Amino acid sequence: MRTIGHLINGKFVADDPRQQDITNPSTNEVVAKVSLASKATVEEAIAAAAAAYPAWRDVPPAKRARIMYRLKELLEQNADKICEMLTREHGKVLNDAMGELQRGIENVEYVCSAPELLKGEHSKNVGPAIDSWSEFQPLGVCAGITPFNFPAMVPLWMWPMAIACGNTFILKPSERDPSSALFIAELGLEAGIPAGVLNVVHGDKEAVDTLLTDKRVQAVSFVGSTPIAEYVYSTGNANGKRVQAFGGAKNHALVMPDADLDNAVSALMGAAYGSCGERCMAISVAVAVGDATADALIEKLQAQIAKLKVGDGMDNGNDMGPLVTRAHLDKVEGYIARGVEEGAELVVDGRGLKVPGFEDGNYLGASLFDRVKPGMAIHSDEIFGPVLCVMRVDTMQEAMDIIDAHEYGNGTCIFTRDGEAARYFSDNIKVGMVGINVPLPVPVAYHSFGGWKRSLFGDLHAYGPDSVRFYTKRKTVTQRWPASGVREGAQFSFPSNN
Amino acid sequence: MRTIGHLINGKFVADDPRQQDITNPSTNEVVAKVSLASKATVEEAIAAAAAAYPAWRDVPPAKRARIMYRLKELLEQNADKICEMLTREHGKVLNDAMGELQRGIENVEYVCSAPELLKGEHSKNVGPAIDSWSEFQPLGVCAGITPFNFPAMVPLWMWPMAIACGNTFILKPSERDPSSALFIAELGLEAGIPAGVLNVVHGDKEAVDTLLTDKRVQAVSFVGSTPIAEYVYSTGNANGKRVQAFGGAKNHALVMPDADLDNAVSALMGAAYGSCGERCMAISVAVAVGDATADALIEKLQAQIAKLKVGDGMDNGNDMGPLVTRAHLDKVEGYIARGVEEGAELVVDGRGLKVPGFEDGNYLGASLFDRVKPGMAIHSDEIFGPVLCVMRVDTMQEAMDIIDAHEYGNGTCIFTRDGEAARYFSDNIKVGMVGINVPLPVPVAYHSFGGWKRSLFGDLHAYGPDSVRFYTKRKTVTQRWPASGVREGAQFSFPSNN
Amino acid sequence: MRTIGHLINGKFVADDPRQQDITNPSTNEVVAKVSLASKATVEEAIAAAAAAYPAWRDVPPAKRARIMYRLKELLEQNADKICEMLTREHGKVLNDAMGELQRGIENVEYVCSAPELLKGEHSKNVGPAIDSWSEFQPLGVCAGITPFNFPAMVPLWMWPMAIACGNTFILKPSERDPSSALFIAELGLEAGIPAGVLNVVHGDKEAVDTLLTDKRVQAVSFVGSTPIAEYVYSTGNANGKRVQAFGGAKNHALVMPDADLDNAVSALMGAAYGSCGERCMAISVAVAVGDATADALIEKLQAQIAKLKVGDGMDNGNDMGPLVTRAHLDKVEGYIARGVEEGAELVVDGRGLKVPGFEDGNYLGASLFDRVKPGMAIHSDEIFGPVLCVMRVDTMQEAMDIIDAHEYGNGTCIFTRDGEAARYFSDNIKVGMVGINVPLPVPVAYHSFGGWKRSLFGDLHAYGPDSVRFYTKRKTVTQRWPASGVREGAQFSFPSNN
Amino acid sequence: MRTIGHLINGKFVADDPRQQDITNPSTNEVVAKVSLASKATVEEAIAAAAAAYPAWRDVPPAKRARIMYRLKELLEQNADKICEMLTREHGKVLNDAMGELQRGIENVEYVCSAPELLKGEHSKNVGPAIDSWSEFQPLGVCAGITPFNFPAMVPLWMWPMAIACGNTFILKPSERDPSSALFIAELGLEAGIPAGVLNVVHGDKEAVDTLLTDKRVQAVSFVGSTPIAEYVYSTGNANGKRVQAFGGAKNHALVMPDADLDNAVSALMGAAYGSCGERCMAISVAVAVGDATADALIEKLQAQIAKLKVGDGMDNGNDMGPLVTRAHLDKVEGYIARGVEEGAELVVDGRGLKVPGFEDGNYLGASLFDRVKPGMAIHSDEIFGPVLCVMRVDTMQEAMDIIDAHEYGNGTCIFTRDGEAARYFSDNIKVGMVGINVPLPVPVAYHSFGGWKRSLFGDLHAYGPDSVRFYTKRKTVTQRWPASGVREGAQFSFPSNN
Repeated sequence: MRTIGHLINGKFVADDPRQQDITNPSTNEVVAKVSLASKATVEEAIAAAAAAYPAWRDVPPAKRARIMYRLKELLEQNADKICEMLTREHGKVLNDAMGELQRGIENVEYVCSAPELLKGEHSKNVGPAIDSWSEFQPLGVCAGITPFNFPAMVPLWMWPMAIACGNTFILKPSERDPSSALFIAELGLEAGIPAGVLNVVHGDKEAVDTLLTDKRVQAVSFVGSTPIAEYVYSTGNANGKRVQAFGGAKNHALVMPDADLDNAVSALMGAAYGSCGERCMAISVAVAVGDATADALIEKLQAQIAKLKVGDGMDNGNDMGPLVTRAHLDKVEGYIARGVEEGAELVVDGRGLKVPGFEDGNYLGASLFDRVKPGMAIHSDEIFGPVLCVMRVDTMQEAMDIIDAHEYGNGTCIFTRDGEAARYFSDNIKVGMVGINVPLPVPVAYHSFGGWKRSLFGDLHAYGPDSVRFYTKRKTVTQRWPASGVREGAQFSFPSNN
Repeated sequence: MRTIGHLINGKFVADDPRQQDITNPSTNEVVAKVSLASKATVEEAIAAAAAAYPAWRDVPPAKRARIMYRLKELLEQNADKICEMLTREHGKVLNDAMGELQRGIENVEYVCSAPELLKGEHSKNVGPAIDSWSEFQPLGVCAGITPFNFPAMVPLWMWPMAIACGNTFILKPSERDPSSALFIAELGLEAGIPAGVLNVVHGDKEAVDTLLTDKRVQAVSFVGSTPIAEYVYSTGNANGKRVQAFGGAKNHALVMPDADLDNAVSALMGAAYGSCGERCMAISVAVAVGDATADALIEKLQAQIAKLKVGDGMDNGNDMGPLVTRAHLDKVEGYIARGVEEGAELVVDGRGLKVPGFEDGNYLGASLFDRVKPGMAIHSDEIFGPVLCVMRVDTMQEAMDIIDAHEYGNGTCIFTRDGEAARYFSDNIKVGMVGINVPLPVPVAYHSFGGWKRSLFGDLHAYGPDSVRFYTKRKTVTQRWPASGVREGAQFSFPSNN
Repeated sequence: MRTIGHLINGKFVADDPRQQDITNPSTNEVVAKVSLASKATVEEAIAAAAAAYPAWRDVPPAKRARIMYRLKELLEQNADKICEMLTREHGKVLNDAMGELQRGIENVEYVCSAPELLKGEHSKNVGPAIDSWSEFQPLGVCAGITPFNFPAMVPLWMWPMAIACGNTFILKPSERDPSSALFIAELGLEAGIPAGVLNVVHGDKEAVDTLLTDKRVQAVSFVGSTPIAEYVYSTGNANGKRVQAFGGAKNHALVMPDADLDNAVSALMGAAYGSCGERCMAISVAVAVGDATADALIEKLQAQIAKLKVGDGMDNGNDMGPLVTRAHLDKVEGYIARGVEEGAELVVDGRGLKVPGFEDGNYLGASLFDRVKPGMAIHSDEIFGPVLCVMRVDTMQEAMDIIDAHEYGNGTCIFTRDGEAARYFSDNIKVGMVGINVPLPVPVAYHSFGGWKRSLFGDLHAYGPDSVRFYTKRKTVTQRWPASGVREGAQFSFPSNN
Repeated sequence: MRTIGHLINGKFVADDPRQQDITNPSTNEVVAKVSLASKATVEEAIAAAAAAYPAWRDVPPAKRARIMYRLKELLEQNADKICEMLTREHGKVLNDAMGELQRGIENVEYVCSAPELLKGEHSKNVGPAIDSWSEFQPLGVCAGITPFNFPAMVPLWMWPMAIACGNTFILKPSERDPSSALFIAELGLEAGIPAGVLNVVHGDKEAVDTLLTDKRVQAVSFVGSTPIAEYVYSTGNANGKRVQAFGGAKNHALVMPDADLDNAVSALMGAAYGSCGERCMAISVAVAVGDATADALIEKLQAQIAKLKVGDGMDNGNDMGPLVTRAHLDKVEGYIARGVEEGAELVVDGRGLKVPGFEDGNYLGASLFDRVKPGMAIHSDEIFGPVLCVMRVDTMQEAMDIIDAHEYGNGTCIFTRDGEAARYFSDNIKVGMVGINVPLPVPVAYHSFGGWKRSLFGDLHAYGPDSVRFYTKRKTVTQRWPASGVREGAQFSFPSNN
């Protein structure tokens, strides 16, 4: 049985007494064991990162960026291998894994712009013969703690930019599906990242707490659930760190009466059921304005769901794979039961699905609720499964009030043809990422990702321009040169030589 | 006796049972009383700000900025009146008050650029016919808590930008010297800020805690001491707020052997003793490289100190006024005594100074220590008085190690003619604001102010470009329009008319 | 009879032998005479500007900008006086003059952001210990040549930014209506612009050619007709100058079948007939998609035209004043006649209008053509009068083809509710300024103004961000400091002292 | 004998009747023939580029940029092959060729940032519910005309950015050494540039004039001598094109008495003699302040020149290869003779050098003049050969006056340790690219390249941020959505359903 170890100072380390099983969600077979880092092991990684920092900060940004061009090549060359790792440990269909990886590669592409992005502001003559400029200097040792649902992409939101900005880094990927993150880090080293600049440790709360409390760690980026995000944010802050912590989501799609419904339904199918809904940007609620809209929406969704293929992720003919673990499957099925209890109308019930040849897999079919109301658990909680809730409202304002009242404010979208409706919605809705006829408005890599309300703790968003600010601190220099130096000296002294 | 009240929703309110005396530091006479807001009073202000927010956020930024142009005019027209308030309550010399106000006005000038500063990033074709852009939207109700030492300027770092960005605001100025801040807020209303958009409350911990815990307050800016800054940061964060909290400082000047010493001494005199050293950017330590440098520095400083005029701030012939309170005077004198005890050489002792006609004022003469060492309280603590410590080192690196090891990292400067020394220093020193032959490297209003280490809690600096980011949150919109709308409709339908 | 002289080096000069009458368009009475500068007079202004340059370039940008804040105040205080000058010499209604002036003031507001706008890009470590940054330095002596139709606003597009960037300036306003530009320049000097930094000369081709050929002039901004713009551009370039020359326009409004027609008609009335159509952003052609749209449009326009009040500009009850000169009136009437000859349908004929009490004024009523076709002179030429042409097409693409085929590409707009139609139009139309349900898409002062095709000669647009680039040249500095300077020197020499 | 043909619409074409020899400068053997395009051939390329444009402009920028990442890989993989082409046709030493190519690759790297660089400015609420944004749209068909001295790099300044911005392109490389440019274009197509988007034609004045006059070409970038640059600029402008034309240079190094002379001499050797001085950024004049400085400089230069190895460029042991052609060698030798005639002191005479085994090569040894004066042809003209002129002045100001009075203003540098001298020099010198202790201050790829005075015709510099502006035109959209669309519609109509 393979044991997945840590990558510290360029070497693999795996001598921790504690280990955990990695299972294939499609079969629940154990495919590997992962070493869970002790405090000492994490401190070793921190020490390596701290030791590598002084030299790395002085490497010119263009040289640091050049490694990222090479990393992009290596990721493209190893894409199939990475996607297999993703599917085997996470369960998502290979095509979907490729989509995830592609998004990650796009983040690496953006990082290649580091020399442009790190430019400071230079002001000539802020006073007579006084100049001033800002520099964006690295922070030192940074850490990233990433979730199971995008095991390859989310780490690539973090460490490439952190490292290109001159920091050194410790990544703690999800211990559920760590292989791809670890392999990609190896590719980073192959691309030219020096030993110690990028380190990977696997672990649980002990590792996390070590990263959050060690004084040498300057900054922490986290993606996960809202309670943990809040804990990471407050603990990291209390220990003098800069922290950005991304939490949960409940993303609503608002469907207007004038929407192109076929287009909207097609978009919703992918946004609700893609990757089994285990995405923080998944659409889990569709709010239809008017019963006519709702009726048509339900009808068309039902028709599409009937065609959905669920099965092993290694087969690209499938639309949905298994959920990540048996425990998670149980939790999602529990929500479906609770929705029924609370009075929502279960239009399509995905429970009880058996995939031939994968009878032990964590499978659940696409599920659809109608007449969901605020206050039901299936509306207030993030289910993180293939469960789409339809809500019915009379007016656009009513829909917006529901969205604004929700605890989370990650993403949302509107389907309409009308310019005014779209503008009013995107202007006023209290959500950080807004789609207009775009169901998953994940910002492209050269914009930044971040929700509002309790979906994000911290001032700065992930990746894109904000990540440059997160991984650097501003230094402002003001400079005046005293007169009567060599310039006037030369003028006075030389004539006497003639 | 005049009672200074709160400004809430455009009206003065002062019915709190608790009041506190305002004294003139030059005489210790009580010149006014200030009302200390109860929780209920602060909540009234928050309610006013919350009510004013929806309409204010929709006012076009250019119109909001236009009020700031008008405010600048009013500040200039009322400069003498404001400076008298400053001198009477804080003690600083009128000229110095004018310098403070001018810096504040420059912040207002920068805020006039709001329409430029609020521009988002627009990307055409992030995908086929898909566009994406970012908007920087206001946060809602913001609060500012400001210190006694710059009673006019620091509030102007905060609320003009916050308001120009579309937020509404509650200012809690220092209860020691609140008149100028209150009067400037009145000018803001006269300039066109609607009632409720800007509110002022005076108070103590009860007011601060109300601002830090009320859910309607979205963000808090704080300037004060490090322990309070840390408290404000953690309490605000725990209550879901965005916080930036600026704390203490101990700013070192590094004097190189090749420095233009006359220039350096002249610069140090103002930086160390101006405003009695009650500035977070004051130079309180001069580190001389080489004994020859130190000896010459001490000699020249002594000569300058001998000429320094200390007296009532209303007389512009004076260089230094009184300290802010009797308690603070006692504290600073205590530090001088302790420095002597700990073995530093007290070259000039400013204690015991009596200013004729102002015998009850909080006066202390300029004081100078030589041979100060790390570990002495006069080096590790922020004294906030007219006490300059000279340290002697053999090398530039030794000087930089002392600076880097200090808890605070607000400002620092180097005196040299050498390009390489200056560049090495500004690149490597672990301090946020660096001067090269500039003793007080306070960034100009179009750059941002912020220290490193325990001088600042938060990611974003004060005023300048960073303040735009602090007072707004990013929203990213991704837009695609479904085809077969009116455009193709027109194409298909009209030919049949011919 | 008052003679309007030049403002050179802070003094009025008016001893040229040649003079020209200024008439009131509402009465054709001579209200003043303007001195026409000889080559020698213009050279005197150039010499003054060249002499003032070295000191002015070294004034910190923030101080230069501060003058602009003061200018804004003075413009607001003198607004009524300026508007009367505008109306008396140009003819436009006072309200309209106030709108023009307001736009000009907004340009001054933007210029106040100069310290922000002049920031260069600073790159740390472009190589090991090598830094590089860009500076945007002033050009030297710049000139502006401005048209009769916006006598106050267009000069304010130019010289405030040029001067804030550190240049000195010579303005040659239209000799038809020079009073407001001259008076505003005086306000500039009152605001603090030093003598010689801003100069005004009146004149004709002799003055223009002197500005275009004198080697001391570094840059020329021009607004006028396309043939002259082209002459200015090539002549200036051949004489080593940077030139931006804005020419003619023929702005089309595309009216889609789904447009809110009442809103569109209301917008078109102002855009077509405001200021008698003597605006380079006036809508002079409305292209209706579908006969139903066209019929409704014509009907509603006719109804609105019937209510239009034409008369003396000093009466704000009027919607339209007289044309600028008798010669121009004759030319516009000639176009109406020609349109009829060429087969267009003259729906409303504004010719022959007599305004009681102003029978000698250059009055022409609003005129409306239907069924205008490409190839007619009223479509291919810029009429610059109150003549709106309606064209009928079957499809949106046909409308866009007409617009794209036109020689000019200044502004255009579309009226629709449909997001997709708007996006397709704004993306593809070959016009520089595009309105979506905005009839006069003149960019606000913090964006830039510029047409495409033969509406602009030059790379950079007017005012806004582009004007900063136009009035400065980039300098890139790359800096490395040799080691073994005072820093290592200090390290080596001092230990031996111990 | 190989004939080098054109690359048009993805295919090689070489059927022009006119051809020209390509010789190896080291031997003067003919190594290939190049086809000289007729007007018809160039028009064919223009037609291909025009046909490819509409589809290419709509490809998302990120996809266009992705091709550039691939191009970078291909350039790195083919570096040796490209460098051999460079050495064989141009003569420069392989190492130097590799340096040239590396700079070219860095330009490609910068172009990968296109999605970031193409972001427009988005303003919410420029008026009530009115938004405005700018887009930087491509121009259409662009052309580049490049010189013999950097056959690989200068084309890479141009077409990658032009194409990434959405334009299509026609490159006319120098007909002296076209192979590398052609091969790199093939790599561009291999990387994914569609046929027709990038085309290469070889030719002489006929080809150039066709590009300058054809209406379909929207913009031309040129690098060459000043007289041709001026012709290209005026001809292109007269034909409605945007043009940037980079001309000649005479770059001075100012050597101050406090300079680190060993460092300065080492830097000057490379800057003066590298690539035989055939660089527009070569240092051809060293201005020494004070005779002591000059004497020491001359002595150290002589010592270094004595060690210089001149020989075939294929041998990396050599420091200098041959000049590009026999005609150019004759011209440079003529300048040396003229310098002697005009009274300069020829300290080292490189004429008459014979390289064993390469006796027919265009070899010239490093040459050094002392006591050069303004007015001598060797100072006023760009020699473009391995000839360094030393001038002697008494003061820094005198040196700066000489530099400022020169016709050209491309690059310059100063050698000093003094911060004030460096700042005064870089601030005031009338030259576009300034080095401080950096002899060849060629801006890095993420800054922009451009000289002042008659070294550049046009507003915008080459590569870096300015090139994005050069290859795009600004479009400003202002958008308002009429109310009472589907949003209010929904509100009004739905309640009646209840």
